[in-house]
Amino acid sequence: MANEQILDLINQKKFSDLRTYLNGLKEADIADEIEKIEEPDVLLKVFRLLKKDIAADVFTYLDFDIQKHLIETISEQELNLIMNDLYLDDTIDLIENLPANVVNRILRVTKAEKRQEINRFLGYEEKTAGSLMTSEYLDLKGDMKVSDCFKRIRKLAQDKETINTCYIVDDTKMLIGEISIRDLILASPTKLIKDVMSSNIIPVNTSETQEEVSSLFKKYNVNELPVQDMDNRMVGIITIDDVIDVIEEDTTEDFHKMAAIMPNDESYLKTSAFTHSKKRILWLTLLMISAIFTGILLTSYEQILSDQIILVSFLPLLMGLAGNCGSQASTLMIRGMVLEEISMKDYFKIFFKEFYVSLFMGSFLAIFNFFRIFIQYKDFLIATIIALTVILIVLIANLIGFTMPLLAKKLKLDPAVMAAPIITTILDCLVILTYFNIAQMLLY
Amino acid sequence: MANEQILDLINQKKFSDLRTYLNGLKEADIADEIEKIEEPDVLLKVFRLLKKDIAADVFTYLDFDIQKHLIETISEQELNLIMNDLYLDDTIDLIENLPANVVNRILRVTKAEKRQEINRFLGYEEKTAGSLMTSEYLDLKGDMKVSDCFKRIRKLAQDKETINTCYIVDDTKMLIGEISIRDLILASPTKLIKDVMSSNIIPVNTSETQEEVSSLFKKYNVNELPVQDMDNRMVGIITIDDVIDVIEEDTTEDFHKMAAIMPNDESYLKTSAFTHSKKRILWLTLLMISAIFTGILLTSYEQILSDQIILVSFLPLLMGLAGNCGSQASTLMIRGMVLEEISMKDYFKIFFKEFYVSLFMGSFLAIFNFFRIFIQYKDFLIATIIALTVILIVLIANLIGFTMPLLAKKLKLDPAVMAAPIITTILDCLVILTYFNIAQMLLY
Repeated sequence: MANEQILDLINQKKFSDLRTYLNGLKEADIADEIEKIEEPDVLLKVFRLLKKDIAADVFTYLDFDIQKHLIETISEQELNLIMNDLYLDDTIDLIENLPANVVNRILRVTKAEKRQEINRFLGYEEKTAGSLMTSEYLDLKGDMKVSDCFKRIRKLAQDKETINTCYIVDDTKMLIGEISIRDLILASPTKLIKDVMSSNIIPVNTSETQEEVSSLFKKYNVNELPVQDMDNRMVGIITIDDVIDVIEEDTTEDFHKMAAIMPNDESYLKTSAFTHSKKRILWLTLLMISAIFTGILLTSYEQILSDQIILVSFLPLLMGLAGNCGSQASTLMIRGMVLEEISMKDYFKIFFKEFYVSLFMGSFLAIFNFFRIFIQYKDFLIATIIALTVILIVLIANLIGFTMPLLAKKLKLDPAVMAAPIITTILDCLVILTYFNIAQMLLY
Repeated sequence: MANEQILDLINQKKFSDLRTYLNGLKEADIADEIEKIEEPDVLLKVFRLLKKDIAADVFTYLDFDIQKHLIETISEQELNLIMNDLYLDDTIDLIENLPANVVNRILRVTKAEKRQEINRFLGYEEKTAGSLMTSEYLDLKGDMKVSDCFKRIRKLAQDKETINTCYIVDDTKMLIGEISIRDLILASPTKLIKDVMSSNIIPVNTSETQEEVSSLFKKYNVNELPVQDMDNRMVGIITIDDVIDVIEEDTTEDFHKMAAIMPNDESYLKTSAFTHSKKRILWLTLLMISAIFTGILLTSYEQILSDQIILVSFLPLLMGLAGNCGSQASTLMIRGMVLEEISMKDYFKIFFKEFYVSLFMGSFLAIFNFFRIFIQYKDFLIATIIALTVILIVLIANLIGFTMPLLAKKLKLDPAVMAAPIITTILDCLVILTYFNIAQMLLY
């Protein structure tokens, strides 16, 4: 059903047809339909048609602007229903982005107990395990019988983000084990939970970074991990859907850093031109300033340049080649480090690999250029100068390209910042030094 | 425990201590320990110490080379145990990479039924839903009582990859519904499954691409999705751990393409220098050939260059600026399209945004350069030429940078290929045309 039909149904006041249609869709698809509605009051009408038990789910899929609009316009009673149905981690995400007066409206309708939780969660630093977790997990005691556990699950499951893994804690809230719902179903009902649980657990600390968390999920192939506070008390779980968001977010940040753009949490279209400019201009200016020095370096070879103006025509080729080679090598390193395939301790292995790669590619490209230039200009000397420069700059570009990101990591800087733009700028300088020094040696 | 201690325990023949230690670790960590062992026969000894029921799990975490070595050296009986314990999707991954004689060894010990499954799965094209799925899901019938379902789950759960969602099929294997294990536990035992299941399902077709599959997982926030064949019969499920691998794989490919490297499935260190060179040289050569034309274009301005040799010194700055601007804009587009935040239909919105961004950044950088050059060289004309060129090339670089990836997508090409290297090469040409035409107009 296209969006016009939804509007038609509204205009014709066929609300029950619309309700039936909407409530038959998946929550994410209902949110898509609602986002397409442009008039705020129609949007509100349609949202109110949703069944109570799915309204909160649909709400989490909506764009932030629409969420904000809804919170500001629906009645306190409706807000109450939605807010108390939202999982804690979604509530926190929402609250962190809303202005204070809207947050107050939310806190007013939230139950005291949940309000305390919210305040505690707001204390965790952004991009840590604490900020990713939810406290809505299912906990069991070691001396419960398996059958008692099912009773507890039946009582509490509805409000938990997941029950696929349940956690066993002692009286001080220390995590002592975990059990998957599968093992619980397979266990004999009269057994004690401590005899069937697995005590081999991988707890995460609230202060661990989201990168560390996502690398644990990837390493152990799990769908949820328990989170402990500084005193080793269990405080929550992290679920894999949030980890996927983290992986995408980190990847986007890496792409942007590698293209000399400062990180931006918002999507492209939602960011204003002014903010885009701010995120881009700083690096452009810094890179331009270093290009000014490259230019000044170039003027110091003014003599040989005016003697042999033909040398200028090879600059785009040589600078481009160095930049591309360096960006290939640095990208291989940056991505390899993110995937935890390489680290500084592999330096010499990488060194020899890149050395052979450079020799192979450098020789091929040098020979190619030598013949091309010799045939085109019939100038043996110029052809030799270019061929020698090509071999040397391929070697230099690879060396700089793979060393800089590894070095950045070693110095606890972000390797992604050492990507194409910076490396290209450094290489421009080195290309000019190499090129004109070889030319001076051979021509004079 | 460090790796030397493992070797000590082996040398002192303290196998039972070692067994206790290893069997207390998580499977992924046992695999890590085993991978550190360098002598093949020690490795085999240690692997044989593992409990039967975890050996297959540990096996899936091992490096491919070690898996191959183990398959070739363990007894047929041991191989039998491991192979029949592996989930089908892991078996397929393994078989696809092994040489034929080793595959035969595996197929010989595999039960006839599983062997048929394997052969069917090998028929699915790489990187499709069919190649990602496993057939080990739990199916139920609509007219079963909830209590019967639990009986079936207790009987079959051990061999299924997951039971967190169960699928309800009719007699022709058509998928008619799904139910989460949570809802099953909460349902009254006497109810029929068709009355408690959800019929609102999102089936994937075996031929859908892995990108489509991962975007469904992200959209609907699910941990598994059912897969149907061309006749709408349910044939398997895809689980989220495999989707995470797909996301990482696609991201790595995008990074490599954007750095002008041809995709490579192997990790950096495992790829030989020769293969690395092959993956990198093609694009380097193509980009170099276009740089040759840029060089030739440059020689057509030989006259003005030898008159005003100072103009050469601004080339690194202008070419660098255009390249960086273009790579910023193209990266924003490429990533935005992967995240499904932008598409060709947003072209005009993007156009106006980039236009304002260009004006803002261009003016700032032009003014900066004007004063810098005027102060340094006291040459009003040169300062004006550079300032004008800067404004124009920022505009051109952004226009080309955001248009090329969108256009590529429209033409059903891969947008990631239209990244920094290609765009920089195109821009080098345009910079030279813009720069020297402005210079000729103002100087003559």
